[in-house]
Amino acid sequence: MQPVLADSVKLTDDGVLILDRREFPFERKWVLCKTAEEVATAIEDMVTQSSGPYFAVLYAMVLKARTLEGKPFAQAREELAETGRRLENTRRTNNALHKATKIVLEAVDEAQDVSNALQGALEGDARYRAKSQALGEHTANLLPDEATVLTHCWADLYLTETVRAAQNQNKRLRFFCTETRPYLQGARLTAETLIEMGVDTTLITDGMGAAVLQSGEIDALVTAADRVTMDGHVVNKVGTLGLAVAAHAFGVPFHALVQAPDLKAPTTQDVEIEYRDGAEVLRVLGRPSATPRVKGLYPAFDVTPPRFVTNVVTDRGVYRAGELDRYYEGDQR
Amino acid sequence: MQPVLADSVKLTDDGVLILDRREFPFERKWVLCKTAEEVATAIEDMVTQSSGPYFAVLYAMVLKARTLEGKPFAQAREELAETGRRLENTRRTNNALHKATKIVLEAVDEAQDVSNALQGALEGDARYRAKSQALGEHTANLLPDEATVLTHCWADLYLTETVRAAQNQNKRLRFFCTETRPYLQGARLTAETLIEMGVDTTLITDGMGAAVLQSGEIDALVTAADRVTMDGHVVNKVGTLGLAVAAHAFGVPFHALVQAPDLKAPTTQDVEIEYRDGAEVLRVLGRPSATPRVKGLYPAFDVTPPRFVTNVVTDRGVYRAGELDRYYEGDQR
Repeated sequence: MQPVLADSVKLTDDGVLILDRREFPFERKWVLCKTAEEVATAIEDMVTQSSGPYFAVLYAMVLKARTLEGKPFAQAREELAETGRRLENTRRTNNALHKATKIVLEAVDEAQDVSNALQGALEGDARYRAKSQALGEHTANLLPDEATVLTHCWADLYLTETVRAAQNQNKRLRFFCTETRPYLQGARLTAETLIEMGVDTTLITDGMGAAVLQSGEIDALVTAADRVTMDGHVVNKVGTLGLAVAAHAFGVPFHALVQAPDLKAPTTQDVEIEYRDGAEVLRVLGRPSATPRVKGLYPAFDVTPPRFVTNVVTDRGVYRAGELDRYYEGDQR
Repeated sequence: MQPVLADSVKLTDDGVLILDRREFPFERKWVLCKTAEEVATAIEDMVTQSSGPYFAVLYAMVLKARTLEGKPFAQAREELAETGRRLENTRRTNNALHKATKIVLEAVDEAQDVSNALQGALEGDARYRAKSQALGEHTANLLPDEATVLTHCWADLYLTETVRAAQNQNKRLRFFCTETRPYLQGARLTAETLIEMGVDTTLITDGMGAAVLQSGEIDALVTAADRVTMDGHVVNKVGTLGLAVAAHAFGVPFHALVQAPDLKAPTTQDVEIEYRDGAEVLRVLGRPSATPRVKGLYPAFDVTPPRFVTNVVTDRGVYRAGELDRYYEGDQR
């Protein structure tokens, strides 16, 4: 069965419908964004995250293109590109948003017609799903039957495709997932979706990962990566680093899932780490969780050095963190 | 100024007054326990924790002793000892509760009079505070001026005495503290108390510790220990292990504070790790924080092996994790 979160951004005649991940699964509320700007704001406000913004940006570009029909192509194309830059800037650590605007603009350029944005968005949608499926199969191949997997935050389609591939291989997996403060994506999105897919799942707090890794019951740490640099650094939701270091200390392999290492990021110097408002650390589900007198710090991502990464799993297969150039061998780049 | 939490268990004519740490600092509510059994239940329900149960047990013994006056000594003594066993069993990972019942029973035995329980309790109270003060001074000696310290959970008097000693030495400390899910002791107790003491404090979630340790801005990881085994394993609030492993990976010293290593625990085999109800992981401040369909796991403590521990700081001074026998050298044991 298709989990709800695997199809949680939809293009309609009225706008883009986005499942509100801040409330899920307590409430299943869809936010209607009538303009590209409304989509940008929704992404900034964390209505959707993980791969959600990629799909939202694809369809936000279509919304913008709809308003441009009838304008001279050069002008329309420039306005669409400007909207693309606005959308890309909503979250700056992950480069998937740039890929989304690029595929739409390429389709528009090819046809010399902004109404071809829809074609580009559909192609971007299908391509992301196909790559996620391939990546999920490579990940499932790494996991033994009856494996117990620790995951962090919400790996979205990479996770659901890994579980689906394992199920197709008749492998039974068990999961531990961290709750992932401050937004609780693990407790809400990952736990709910794994259970939707029939997977035995246990929730822990973010501080319990090392103890579980030390216990001997975890066969692999598996997380998504927002970006992987060409020199093997894994940029992902803050908390990944601590789990990776503990996995390394206790002999558990860490597989980081990303469609491709990022040619635009030779090293971590090329990745901007997003710092969100520290006040978000003082709240949980909108209510105060800390003394109001303290200040919070909220680096949204952390960077795991390659010495703590066992494998980087991509759509093209499995690579050691030290050999990511091989991903592009024979490729046009 | 004396922080509120440094004096949060009080003996009165009506019973034992315990500041409710589950609500602090949002509400400052004192729970009145009229009997030793009510104190035991309050400890089990986490009304107080860290060093709170030690003081609560001292004075619960006095409450029980008050009901025994007039009974033959042998019978009264046996009933008091039975109450002691009930109290010790409320939290089984930390052996401070055994020390509390022991000091009261010794005073009773010496006088052959249960009404001497009060004397024993007051002695136990003063002794704990004196040891914490000595330990705080040794810890402050380890920290450079302008040090930035990462701490986890709530180290109670060990923390407040460390800060006080540093202030007496005219050292200015900065703290980062983890929120410490599921009970948020860091976000509520540690953060509030450090700010009460005038210390610059920044709150992070439990998953952010490794990133902060990697950043280079932390000079030391400092936590309490519920127990330290004679072979150097540090048993403390779950989450300590992950921070210690990350501190080790990034070259930050880890100082674990405990009054004394535990002669009754030569190795970790001798320490029972408390597993609390997994449902507590699915809630925050009494409200659901996870899908109700998932199960939780809640090991309340984890065990940090000596290879990740730089120093064990005691009331008698600073020891390497591999030389804890020296604590008892020349001692009667």
